[in-house]
Amino acid sequence: MLFFTQCFGAVLDLIHLRFQHYKAKRVFSAAGQLVCVVNPTHSLKYAASRCAAVQASTEQGILPPCHHHGEAVHDPQLVPCTCPLFSCPWEGHLEVVVSHLRQTHHINILQGAEIVFLATDMHLPAPTDWIIMHSCLGHQFLLVLRKQEKYEGHPQFFATMMLIGTPTQANNFTYRLELNRNQRRLKWEATPRSILECVDSVISDGDCLVLNTSLAQLFSDNGSLAIGIAITTSKVHSSEAEM
Amino acid sequence: MLFFTQCFGAVLDLIHLRFQHYKAKRVFSAAGQLVCVVNPTHSLKYAASRCAAVQASTEQGILPPCHHHGEAVHDPQLVPCTCPLFSCPWEGHLEVVVSHLRQTHHINILQGAEIVFLATDMHLPAPTDWIIMHSCLGHQFLLVLRKQEKYEGHPQFFATMMLIGTPTQANNFTYRLELNRNQRRLKWEATPRSILECVDSVISDGDCLVLNTSLAQLFSDNGSLAIGIAITTSKVHSSEAEM
Repeated sequence: MLFFTQCFGAVLDLIHLRFQHYKAKRVFSAAGQLVCVVNPTHSLKYAASRCAAVQASTEQGILPPCHHHGEAVHDPQLVPCTCPLFSCPWEGHLEVVVSHLRQTHHINILQGAEIVFLATDMHLPAPTDWIIMHSCLGHQFLLVLRKQEKYEGHPQFFATMMLIGTPTQANNFTYRLELNRNQRRLKWEATPRSILECVDSVISDGDCLVLNTSLAQLFSDNGSLAIGIAITTSKVHSSEAEM
Repeated sequence: MLFFTQCFGAVLDLIHLRFQHYKAKRVFSAAGQLVCVVNPTHSLKYAASRCAAVQASTEQGILPPCHHHGEAVHDPQLVPCTCPLFSCPWEGHLEVVVSHLRQTHHINILQGAEIVFLATDMHLPAPTDWIIMHSCLGHQFLLVLRKQEKYEGHPQFFATMMLIGTPTQANNFTYRLELNRNQRRLKWEATPRSILECVDSVISDGDCLVLNTSLAQLFSDNGSLAIGIAITTSKVHSSEAEM
């Protein structure tokens, strides 16, 4: 009996995901984009202790381990780096971080310059991460959506794009995140950050797309948030010149 | 001597404003938009007491005075409304709210569907308001930028556009606010709210453009924030259909 109940639950979940996928596809349909359903990947259970460590080392004038900007190394693939996920102690070279993320953290990798990231279960308590890798224009990018309580009792959503490469390589690209629902539209456009910088510091600086819970709810549909993502090569370094 | 010092100060202020105006114009130059320097208009010194009054009346099931949606009145100009500014006890009809804002609060009115709002002195402590009226497409709109501490000790900036008209009239328009600086771009697009709804409730709901202080600083230049504003008539009610 329990087996049948579980099977029925699984079928219902599949129908629900399929329905969400269909709805997100309808919203972003004109662009014919790939829709990727992203479940929360990461409980950040050691977040507080790593935060404290980063804080302490910064106060002592020591760079935290993820700040190996290392442009002096000639082959960017051999720059040492840490895993961008908060609670993971892994360290290695840039060339193997993608396989580490896929194998250890089971993070999906998607192809295409324009995709739709559909984050499910937005109601889950902070801290929670939704992460995918995105392969386009000859590089791999990491999209991180994080629910975090920067101000106690007030969770916010932070979304940023990191290049799995050096800061110099990152400067060649521009990414755009777009939310569109309920007669409201929000677009954020910036240069991706290098994975050699901390995701955590990008988020704590607030230099990314930031959503209060109320706005995230307005853009959500049935507990899922669809974010349109586009990556292009930067033609000019100053986007002001484009306006 | 004091007179000369004051004169010199005034000339320096003028040069500074002119320089900011020139810089904002350069950023938004391609569109040939009108740049309007907006000084803080409003100290909100009675904010706490009015907040408390609104809170109390809502808890007692009484609508606060600014919630006269009043679509039953046939001539929209005769709908009763209150002054949208926080500390002002004025009440009157929609048809005279523009002259009240101009005469009592000295709020500028600008012409044109696309303008640049250049808010000065962003460093001033919360609560602070920057307000202009904007006349286009046969209607008057009110742009409110407010610095407010929704979470104690963490001021945020909230920007919204209100139509000086009824909610039904407001549904015919779409407004866009755009920030563009330091290789970052943020766009917010929505239907304006009617001035018959509280500006305060729009801001407390967070259903507007919200900036944390760190992001506001990234978009600011020398303490001033340039916001590109565009108003259009809504062709379709659901903006999802446009994508």
